Amino acid sequence: MIMIPKSHPRYHSLIQREKLVEGVKKGITAMQGLIAHGRGEMFDYVLGEKTHDFAWEAERVAVAMMLLAKRPVISVNGNTAVLVPEELVKLSNILNAPLEVNVFHFSVERVRRIAEYLESFGAKVLAGCDAELKGLEHGRRIVDSRGIMIADVVLVPLEDGDRCEVLKRHGKMVIAIDLNPLSRTARMADVTIVDNIIRAIPNMIEIAEELRQSNRAELEKIVHSYDNREILRRAVEAIRDNLTEKAKELLEL
Amino acid sequence: MIMIPKSHPRYHSLIQREKLVEGVKKGITAMQGLIAHGRGEMFDYVLGEKTHDFAWEAERVAVAMMLLAKRPVISVNGNTAVLVPEELVKLSNILNAPLEVNVFHFSVERVRRIAEYLESFGAKVLAGCDAELKGLEHGRRIVDSRGIMIADVVLVPLEDGDRCEVLKRHGKMVIAIDLNPLSRTARMADVTIVDNIIRAIPNMIEIAEELRQSNRAELEKIVHSYDNREILRRAVEAIRDNLTEKAKELLEL
Repeated sequence: MIMIPKSHPRYHSLIQREKLVEGVKKGITAMQGLIAHGRGEMFDYVLGEKTHDFAWEAERVAVAMMLLAKRPVISVNGNTAVLVPEELVKLSNILNAPLEVNVFHFSVERVRRIAEYLESFGAKVLAGCDAELKGLEHGRRIVDSRGIMIADVVLVPLEDGDRCEVLKRHGKMVIAIDLNPLSRTARMADVTIVDNIIRAIPNMIEIAEELRQSNRAELEKIVHSYDNREILRRAVEAIRDNLTEKAKELLEL
Repeated sequence: MIMIPKSHPRYHSLIQREKLVEGVKKGITAMQGLIAHGRGEMFDYVLGEKTHDFAWEAERVAVAMMLLAKRPVISVNGNTAVLVPEELVKLSNILNAPLEVNVFHFSVERVRRIAEYLESFGAKVLAGCDAELKGLEHGRRIVDSRGIMIADVVLVPLEDGDRCEVLKRHGKMVIAIDLNPLSRTARMADVTIVDNIIRAIPNMIEIAEELRQSNRAELEKIVHSYDNREILRRAVEAIRDNLTEKAKELLEL
């Protein structure tokens, strides 16, 4: 891995890129994942690279929902696996929600590598690839019969547009982490966390450590008052206001 | 190339991604180019993935400027080469402006591969790598003594931030194609086309077919009235208005 000085103004962003390029070399990340990451990077940039209040709110509801769930599952793709492996394992343990490998660019070999990579951090990983979600053509349809197939709540960080809809049609509650508040996934999900996963997952760990003491009534209260459309509206407005501000600064130069 | 179902809601975007991934496998595109593409994708998305009036205006001025130029050159990097090779050749022929290979992640091998790829579509390609633009440290400094080195007008689709400034210091007129109206390149260029190259190059071909009948006075009139700062302002406003509109739609779902 290339050495990047910690003093570099874009240190965190460059480290993430290096992890993904390393991921490609290890056969974990798909090259298409690099493009998707670039897209997310720019959304994060126009959001000011911080967790906004609307994201904190969604993260809190997401954790409550997963603690209330009978069979919660955390879906993991190649990008997620290389960016936050330790954090995923920690969140999985606290929420008692297994990690399931699920990728768009499917191969048995790739799924195995992602699973092994996560297991090296101590994760319990589902990667059976023995069931199929009807209504999808690409690799995302291939799931584990003990995991997503029978889950009631699925956390999907870095999701492809159409799977969210299919998961909904299969009667599941979907929590998405998506930096694009306008995406199909963002609009189809029950809870949309508009935040970078490198902040969202640690935030969720922190929240989970607090909320796991709560009883069901308290958790239900958190979930009950939630309005995802309102969250998305606030996220879009934050991007708009941030861009308008940047444009003013630049055009006045 | 991986098969993408035509039913996928983001089919065209995925096809572009596949071309870039193929480009990496062929040694034409750099992996970093994939991440950069993703960043551009995001801006295209918030612009509504269409050519706006401010882009058409800039494309028209760009073509007029190149028709007026003594030694116009079209600079081509790895991403541009794989996304619009045939279109570049066509534009190069109409404008009588050679293509010159110029890349950030330089190697003689990579430049050769890009040149051969473009030549396979019938291009005249400059790839001498026998001159240096003072003031730049990375691969972009290496140019052709018959091309960018002596050009008066350079079209730079998909540019890196600092080269535009150096080209300006070398006394050249710069036309940039950049989906981010806030970038350094966008602000340094004489003409900034805020449009996706897969639309911009075909548009410029169309405009060139019309304008090549024009005399110098007519072309000069088109160039004369142009204000790039105003174009950038309109681009930023288009993004802002598009986001405002989308935020409204989100709430009305």
